[in-house]
Amino acid sequence: MTDRCPDAYVELAHGLADAAGEIVRGFFRRPCAVSVKPDSTPVTEADRAAEWAMRTIIEEAAPDHGIAGEEFGTVRGDAEYVWHLDPIDGTKAFIAGVPVFGTLIGLARDGRPVFGVIDQAVSGERWAGGGGHPCTLNGGRASCRGGVDLADAVLFTTSPDAYRDGDLDALDRLRGVVGLTRYGADCYAFGLVASGHADIAIECGVNDYDYCALVPVVESAGGAMTNWEGAPVMLGTDTRVVAAGDAELHRAAVSLLGG
Amino acid sequence: MTDRCPDAYVELAHGLADAAGEIVRGFFRRPCAVSVKPDSTPVTEADRAAEWAMRTIIEEAAPDHGIAGEEFGTVRGDAEYVWHLDPIDGTKAFIAGVPVFGTLIGLARDGRPVFGVIDQAVSGERWAGGGGHPCTLNGGRASCRGGVDLADAVLFTTSPDAYRDGDLDALDRLRGVVGLTRYGADCYAFGLVASGHADIAIECGVNDYDYCALVPVVESAGGAMTNWEGAPVMLGTDTRVVAAGDAELHRAAVSLLGG
Repeated sequence: MTDRCPDAYVELAHGLADAAGEIVRGFFRRPCAVSVKPDSTPVTEADRAAEWAMRTIIEEAAPDHGIAGEEFGTVRGDAEYVWHLDPIDGTKAFIAGVPVFGTLIGLARDGRPVFGVIDQAVSGERWAGGGGHPCTLNGGRASCRGGVDLADAVLFTTSPDAYRDGDLDALDRLRGVVGLTRYGADCYAFGLVASGHADIAIECGVNDYDYCALVPVVESAGGAMTNWEGAPVMLGTDTRVVAAGDAELHRAAVSLLGG
Repeated sequence: MTDRCPDAYVELAHGLADAAGEIVRGFFRRPCAVSVKPDSTPVTEADRAAEWAMRTIIEEAAPDHGIAGEEFGTVRGDAEYVWHLDPIDGTKAFIAGVPVFGTLIGLARDGRPVFGVIDQAVSGERWAGGGGHPCTLNGGRASCRGGVDLADAVLFTTSPDAYRDGDLDALDRLRGVVGLTRYGADCYAFGLVASGHADIAIECGVNDYDYCALVPVVESAGGAMTNWEGAPVMLGTDTRVVAAGDAELHRAAVSLLGG
């Protein structure tokens, strides 16, 4: 038994991204039905069609694997391998026509994220890595830059409006010391960390399908990603995550988030 | 005498965007010296090189025109025609590797913006229009969507951190009623309004070179753009601007901003 993610599953992950990407591109900046979910977040025809396409492929290729998707829920959640799917992470960006959303495909084994894909179907950028496979961007090696001090760090979070009370205080502590803060990038920010363009990405109020793919991508690029307490993310439990370009910067960020 | 912007100046504007774009693309996500200006905003080698290239072309092609650039100041500011140049609007996005910044090229005649270009050199999106020329995106006709209610509107502003006191209250009133708020897009948001993907874009703390290009683009796409009081923007005076997809939505936004 090895911890290496089988090549066949890596290929399957890319196939899922190909299928979802074709659908997402087809709907981007075109008329697309939008509705509001019970949690007040929007969902579009494109989200549903892209997730359905991925689920269909998994059912065919790996019928013993579980699937936990944002739009259509969980089947076989207790399987050894479970695919965590977010067809469009950053649905608001997608609706607003900004190509910084992404399709997230995360494969967990026994509850631990092992392989991930972040696919930006419009710009044609795909980060993938984990489970013994180095992080790649469109096939070329992607690496965090590391060695950046907090005072020079480029920080991303999607929106300060998602933060309340103590979480907002924590974000403010981090914003107060970093070199530059940017908003609005959703999962794309974690790709930028994995490529060495950004240094810290944090989110709160997120779900397993939002971060299962991100952890292997960031870690396989040499970065660190945990919950805000600095512990490995627990799928289905954690809602606050932080990634950084190296372990030292990650420790500094976690320390500030903790107050 | 006509108010139509001469075709030669339209061609010149596209030539400037071509020249700046080549430089900007060359530096994007590559090592690039960054320094901090007296106003605490960052500037890069790419900003300076791109503005210098544009100034050189203008001096050659239209030596009687004025130039007011973000990085190298103003010459012949009292000329009939003055080019307002922002080589990289959204320098922070550029530094962070997010392709939603833009090169802004605005031509003013007797102090009024007449023609504008918003060029996103990485994604290859160029909005241009004004002075009797309809708005185009990469040569095809671009139009605001119009007919959208405040409650359904997609609102953009670059960062709530730029707002203080009464300005922040005004932003909050707008955020409280629109359908969806997105951050982080700089001038790209105004392009999205001109293409009918977003409905309202507002900024505070901006300068003439930040909005001279935006007004003709938005207006030639059928939208409305003024200062926060609803009056035509005064170059060199106004620092707060608001654009909307049609006159009715614009009036509603201005009314809310006014409190």
